[in-house]
Amino acid sequence: MPTVTMIGGGQLARMTHQAAIALGQGLRVLAASESDPAAQVSADIVLGSHDDLDDLRRAAAGSAALTFDHEGVPLHHLQALEAEGVAVLPPSRALRFAQDKFAMRTRLGELGLPVPDFADLAGDRGAARERLVAFGEANDWHIVIKAVRGGYDGRGVWLVDGADEALTVFDAYPVDAPALLAEQKVPMRRELSAMVARSPFGQGAAWPVVETVQRNGQCAVVLAPAPGLDAEVAERAQQMALRLADELGVVGVMAMELFETVDGELVVNELAMRPHNSGHWTMNGAVTSQFEQHLRAVLDYPLGSTAPTAPLTVMANILGAPDAPEMSMDERLHHLMARMPDAKVHLYGKGERRDRKIGHVNVVGREGDSVETVRERAERAAQWMSQANWTDGWDEHS
Amino acid sequence: MPTVTMIGGGQLARMTHQAAIALGQGLRVLAASESDPAAQVSADIVLGSHDDLDDLRRAAAGSAALTFDHEGVPLHHLQALEAEGVAVLPPSRALRFAQDKFAMRTRLGELGLPVPDFADLAGDRGAARERLVAFGEANDWHIVIKAVRGGYDGRGVWLVDGADEALTVFDAYPVDAPALLAEQKVPMRRELSAMVARSPFGQGAAWPVVETVQRNGQCAVVLAPAPGLDAEVAERAQQMALRLADELGVVGVMAMELFETVDGELVVNELAMRPHNSGHWTMNGAVTSQFEQHLRAVLDYPLGSTAPTAPLTVMANILGAPDAPEMSMDERLHHLMARMPDAKVHLYGKGERRDRKIGHVNVVGREGDSVETVRERAERAAQWMSQANWTDGWDEHS
Repeated sequence: MPTVTMIGGGQLARMTHQAAIALGQGLRVLAASESDPAAQVSADIVLGSHDDLDDLRRAAAGSAALTFDHEGVPLHHLQALEAEGVAVLPPSRALRFAQDKFAMRTRLGELGLPVPDFADLAGDRGAARERLVAFGEANDWHIVIKAVRGGYDGRGVWLVDGADEALTVFDAYPVDAPALLAEQKVPMRRELSAMVARSPFGQGAAWPVVETVQRNGQCAVVLAPAPGLDAEVAERAQQMALRLADELGVVGVMAMELFETVDGELVVNELAMRPHNSGHWTMNGAVTSQFEQHLRAVLDYPLGSTAPTAPLTVMANILGAPDAPEMSMDERLHHLMARMPDAKVHLYGKGERRDRKIGHVNVVGREGDSVETVRERAERAAQWMSQANWTDGWDEHS
Repeated sequence: MPTVTMIGGGQLARMTHQAAIALGQGLRVLAASESDPAAQVSADIVLGSHDDLDDLRRAAAGSAALTFDHEGVPLHHLQALEAEGVAVLPPSRALRFAQDKFAMRTRLGELGLPVPDFADLAGDRGAARERLVAFGEANDWHIVIKAVRGGYDGRGVWLVDGADEALTVFDAYPVDAPALLAEQKVPMRRELSAMVARSPFGQGAAWPVVETVQRNGQCAVVLAPAPGLDAEVAERAQQMALRLADELGVVGVMAMELFETVDGELVVNELAMRPHNSGHWTMNGAVTSQFEQHLRAVLDYPLGSTAPTAPLTVMANILGAPDAPEMSMDERLHHLMARMPDAKVHLYGKGERRDRKIGHVNVVGREGDSVETVRERAERAAQWMSQANWTDGWDEHS
């Protein structure tokens, strides 16, 4: 059976390894440390840096495919590996659009896909500042400033309130950091994610479109499928993601994060060309999980069924608490299992730090369950695991 | 988070490791070789023998619990570990009944649980031969001869046809091998399995009772739940298994294999105190898999929901073919995925040898699917993976 190498030893690699086991494979992981989430649980670990071409070469040696747990690998390293015959998947020509928000927005615009208005703030500072002011005024200062690369989970994104704040962010931004862009703040109803997969053969598959709930710039909750989403809009989102994956030559899974505007239109926000937080629900709520599908795609296997196995699944992230609870994670898990024997907990083996994603909970709804009920249970479980308190105030001792 | 040690590096440990990853744990495995199914995919491997007390000690050091992938660990080693304070789970006082068929039948009889008539063939050969003849005649030679320990997958079981064959087996049996017993061949409708779990706290949980289909003494297919099983009989089987687990002090999962007689009665056939082939369907067809449940039980976590997630799930084992197909396993998997995007394949990373269990396929039925349809699909998938031929004669090139 073939070996797949994944660059990065985080939770996405950890969960991909679970899927690889069933397919008769071991996943090889390039990890920074033996304590990385994936390195804790996998047999085939290469220790090294994703910034080091020789480390990447060592990890790729003998693998059928090289793929990613994050978007941080320098593009020129990937191009060098491709020139040496390594099957980099997604290929560098696709991955660059997930690494560079400016290139992504430009390309999407060329393809006629809806993106928010944006302005390039790269290059000469004085000229860029003038473009920022012009763009701000044109949009009544309803804008967002973003670093074109390297941001995630709310980092590298500034939700600025008016001209003063925007210019303060711009002026304070280091000259040697990744370039910035400004983007129109879209008046939106909610955020959606269209998760798809594409194989080198060209097969595409789309899971149901989900609603994502963000807090502090981070995905907090996912409702699968997106409640009350018009079927035509859902299909449009899927078609947009499938078409884009095809146009860019994506291989593997891809999340297209979207805004549903107050007018019921769709606008593309971000792309991720790897398993994504908005797809964690598939581990318990779909026939094929995003992790298995990613492996199938990069190995050019036929893709698995993306059908949901339940009418509704809600995922809630477990975040590190502002103050780590006295009660151990083990004991918290014990109490959660006692209260919710059907909650599916996925822990990442990470230390608890404020707002760090350390696990997630999936709650699978049954026929007749309301969205509110299932969501409340999932969020209650996740907060308990984070903070050792129950959102409903329950106290087993009272 | 606690560490659990599992003795034995086979597929059961491999699949338990998948479940451990989600619970935030790594599973430590005592494996005979780095190529064992679990050792291929796990980070925390101790190489050694389950027959060696020092190896067992090394594997147990620092673990919250010591548990098993098979029943082969000598009981006196387990008792020694228990005396040293190791949490052996299931404990030796329970496990001995899964190791010794004679002790099991005797104990079940004492507890008033239904077992087939049986006769002890241990001790003095001449006297044992006389007991065999008397028992055979009393049962019109409708009997089976079994080794009291060490048998599995049809090994250590002789389906004898009449007195001559029975006495030939008896006379040819090595003196220094495990003792034999003779057992009444029960006129049966089918075989069932009642899978339960029990925690040290005393919590019990039962999955739906399943039908198991045997071929050549090996489990080939499992239908979950057992089609058309009377609800009262199903509940009786669950209660028998829960009661026995409690009486014996079992910790972990336990499979009670049963005969449903032609009169609709239940008779206990075998016990396994570990994840079991008849529970593989739970990986895709139940809220909590037997592997997660086993970990929850040995760690004294509250048990997970045993509710099925679909009206019907069928598991079919992938067996090594009499002649290994020319087509590689990888290519077979490719074709299966193309034809059945919803089949859930679990491969064990084992070499292909005739009749060896090298994987299994779960097919999850949907509302309205007939048992026949789902079973045919599961068996078709499993035979394809075994032999690279389709039971329905399908040929993509014709």
